[in-house]
Amino acid sequence: MRIEAKPTASTPTLRARRLGLFTQHDAVVLMRSDCHVCRSEGLGPRSQVLLAANGREVLATLYQVADGILGVGEAGLSEVAWERLGVTEGAHLAVRHPPPLDSMSAVRRRIYGQRLDLPAMRSIVNDIAAVRYTDVHLSAFLTACSALPLNLEETVGLTRGMVEAGERLTWDAPIVIDKHSVGGLPGNRTTPIVVAIVASHGLVMPKTSSRAITSPAGTADTMETLAPVDLDVAAMRRVVEQEGACLVWGGSVRLSPADDILIRVERVLDIDTQGQLIASVLSKKIAAGSTHIVIDIPVGATAKVRTDDAATELADQLTEVGRVFGVTLRCVITDGAQPVGRGIGPALEAQDVLAVLQSMPGAPKDLQRRACLLAGAALELAGRCAAGAGVALAEATLADGRAWAKFQRICHAQGGLRTPPTAALTQSVLASHAGRVIGINNRTLARLAKLAGAPDAKAAGLMLHVRLGDEVAEGQALLTVHAEAPGELAYALDFAEANPDIIRLEA
Amino acid sequence: MRIEAKPTASTPTLRARRLGLFTQHDAVVLMRSDCHVCRSEGLGPRSQVLLAANGREVLATLYQVADGILGVGEAGLSEVAWERLGVTEGAHLAVRHPPPLDSMSAVRRRIYGQRLDLPAMRSIVNDIAAVRYTDVHLSAFLTACSALPLNLEETVGLTRGMVEAGERLTWDAPIVIDKHSVGGLPGNRTTPIVVAIVASHGLVMPKTSSRAITSPAGTADTMETLAPVDLDVAAMRRVVEQEGACLVWGGSVRLSPADDILIRVERVLDIDTQGQLIASVLSKKIAAGSTHIVIDIPVGATAKVRTDDAATELADQLTEVGRVFGVTLRCVITDGAQPVGRGIGPALEAQDVLAVLQSMPGAPKDLQRRACLLAGAALELAGRCAAGAGVALAEATLADGRAWAKFQRICHAQGGLRTPPTAALTQSVLASHAGRVIGINNRTLARLAKLAGAPDAKAAGLMLHVRLGDEVAEGQALLTVHAEAPGELAYALDFAEANPDIIRLEA
Repeated sequence: MRIEAKPTASTPTLRARRLGLFTQHDAVVLMRSDCHVCRSEGLGPRSQVLLAANGREVLATLYQVADGILGVGEAGLSEVAWERLGVTEGAHLAVRHPPPLDSMSAVRRRIYGQRLDLPAMRSIVNDIAAVRYTDVHLSAFLTACSALPLNLEETVGLTRGMVEAGERLTWDAPIVIDKHSVGGLPGNRTTPIVVAIVASHGLVMPKTSSRAITSPAGTADTMETLAPVDLDVAAMRRVVEQEGACLVWGGSVRLSPADDILIRVERVLDIDTQGQLIASVLSKKIAAGSTHIVIDIPVGATAKVRTDDAATELADQLTEVGRVFGVTLRCVITDGAQPVGRGIGPALEAQDVLAVLQSMPGAPKDLQRRACLLAGAALELAGRCAAGAGVALAEATLADGRAWAKFQRICHAQGGLRTPPTAALTQSVLASHAGRVIGINNRTLARLAKLAGAPDAKAAGLMLHVRLGDEVAEGQALLTVHAEAPGELAYALDFAEANPDIIRLEA
Repeated sequence: MRIEAKPTASTPTLRARRLGLFTQHDAVVLMRSDCHVCRSEGLGPRSQVLLAANGREVLATLYQVADGILGVGEAGLSEVAWERLGVTEGAHLAVRHPPPLDSMSAVRRRIYGQRLDLPAMRSIVNDIAAVRYTDVHLSAFLTACSALPLNLEETVGLTRGMVEAGERLTWDAPIVIDKHSVGGLPGNRTTPIVVAIVASHGLVMPKTSSRAITSPAGTADTMETLAPVDLDVAAMRRVVEQEGACLVWGGSVRLSPADDILIRVERVLDIDTQGQLIASVLSKKIAAGSTHIVIDIPVGATAKVRTDDAATELADQLTEVGRVFGVTLRCVITDGAQPVGRGIGPALEAQDVLAVLQSMPGAPKDLQRRACLLAGAALELAGRCAAGAGVALAEATLADGRAWAKFQRICHAQGGLRTPPTAALTQSVLASHAGRVIGINNRTLARLAKLAGAPDAKAAGLMLHVRLGDEVAEGQALLTVHAEAPGELAYALDFAEANPDIIRLEA
């Protein structure tokens, strides 16, 4: 087949205009319905378009406006489009149809049950990291990988694709420690304590954490109430060179950026399956240059992992995928029957962390115990003590104030220790009758904290006043909801009222 | 659990402002970042919010603006939000958090492999029809139902849910005929011809059609170039009472509205599996009050259905689901090796339809043959002739001008017969060497027509000048691309150049 006198596609341009439009991660461009670019390119409302300027390209959703908002020849950009393109007011902006999304044919094959090899995974992950997938594409990929779970080869492929699609860090140290908790357990905020203990022993632990996926707080959300966490790689490196450790948000150093994009959609869907979990966890750790990783797997009826068998299987898979990448893993299976500590939500969990680090009299014992279990495993894994001696060494490091001193130095190096905010609005939920606490539902409790505004509202969430086995009197406070906005407080209390078995009492 | 002094959630209001913002089906609301509602409700950019006014509710995506576009206390509405709410300028608008999307737990169960019963399907379809699902949710539901195909019970459940979620038509006639082609075959535009023939024999055929899913044209797209198709139920009923038949777009009469929403996302994903296909087809027909349905299933290597076995299985499933709803089906398996007729694209297919109806000398014989095969099946199914005599009766109805006369009367009743538009830009693709045509790829050909602008650009698409087995000379035109916009013409020709095997020639 041949084409004579093929017209060359000239790319029409418009002048960029900053709209001050906040659209979260969605790049949006507004163009007039009567503009020459829409006409010549055949673009209708909600088309995906490729914007180009300064040698950068951004895929954006096009909305059209009748008139009034934009002048002739102008294209209005949302803040995220403006920033990704790095343009200035009036800059020339080329607008084109986006190229075909070839990797979607691999996603379609996967939907229909075919396995994905490494090149296919790479092409998908590269397109995701380059922000070429819309919500429809992202959701289809995640759902397909949940409906037919990823096998080992696919999990390795996804992990490798994710590592390659972002930055990679290297450290001038033979052992680089990392730690992860599988989650599903509200309030399980051991990481800041573990990092402080481990770094007190001269080990290198450049910790990057996620924000919450489906939980009311991720470690990055909690740490942000205690210190700046949006550090770039150079700043992170300075902190680690100075203190041996850091506690930063992974997203700002672009480690495994595809993971952050997938996590946003997983949060909406509230799905999080084994292969994706492994790729998410390990891609971040491998990209961060970790050599030794301790992984906390809480098991409980309402935790993410529900049985010991499932935990053992997950541990085996994690260890196997880690081995492929030359990483030494220790999985610690822990009790996930009820939340850890008292606070659930970024700032409320930060208060528990501070209480443990400062060895305050009322500090939550369970949080302290878990942190020492995990820090002890890390100390043993790194050869800082004999097998079996890790927990005692970790406890001593907390008790003598070394961990708290180290934590403060890390926070100062990151830009200063902060006091977590407190919520303007609180309201307690009371026991409707006396009895013993026989059940605490991690999932509905997490939902309640999220409805109260966590993690976006940092001070929001809840304080849990009881633990399994406690005897409570009629009218005693079971938990207190904390909120920053009246609407969210009301919304959370509505939910609590409709779900009385969040905390179950034996009559 | 009980709550004392529970605050009542007062719903804050804003004044509605029409922005003239075109966002296709997406309801969008713009609010100032500093507005009291965002603060009191804890709403951030890209939150989903529930807008209420006039007793109507609309779920919308919230974007925030710094200032300049909106005054204090104003909420800017996109056109679709404005229309769904039916508000006037300055009207009070309540803004709330949307209620939890309970049916998503059923979607999650389905992702993890559990089957959905009727109540679960109903809850999902109701939420979809009420426009409560975002693209993430829709894509997850469709993908889950493709990864693990719907079984018979689920297909019946989805069909029933879709029928119940929209309007239902009833007709004062013992036999109500309908017809559907499974698609995947570009240019297979038999419906207008079949309706004209069948209605010529006094049968009732209130035909509602879809717009294109993944094809360059649906029957509604083609018919729209010949007559108005956006008729409401009352107008449709008038046409059918007068002429016994109509040819309208199903979307404007709200038959199975969930189907239209799912189709949009299927189009982006380019997936269309058996259970969804059956529910999509039959829900529309059942809601339209059909009692007897003829279904055309083209089979070919690059058609939607690729083997006779698959066609037989689809036919069996369609018949079985139809039987559950008391509908009589006749499936006709046809040759899907190559496109039908010459035109591909709304207006270009309309020209083929007109040529057949007017018995013009150069009318595409294959289109005429197929239309008579299907019309004949309908005439037999309805008892208008003996078994085996249907095709001859249909051919006679075409030849003596009755069908063309009936078609014109139907178009006039719908608002007037139109002349299909022609494209401003055309460019031919030539044979690079002499040889016999041994392959035509329906899929890449359809893709080419879509890149040229079909179906949104009505005149766009392509004219196919050769058929399988034809001998062509070097430099002879194989097809001509038609486009309305230079950008689309260039885009389509780029694709043709990159895919020389759209039409394969034996050397």
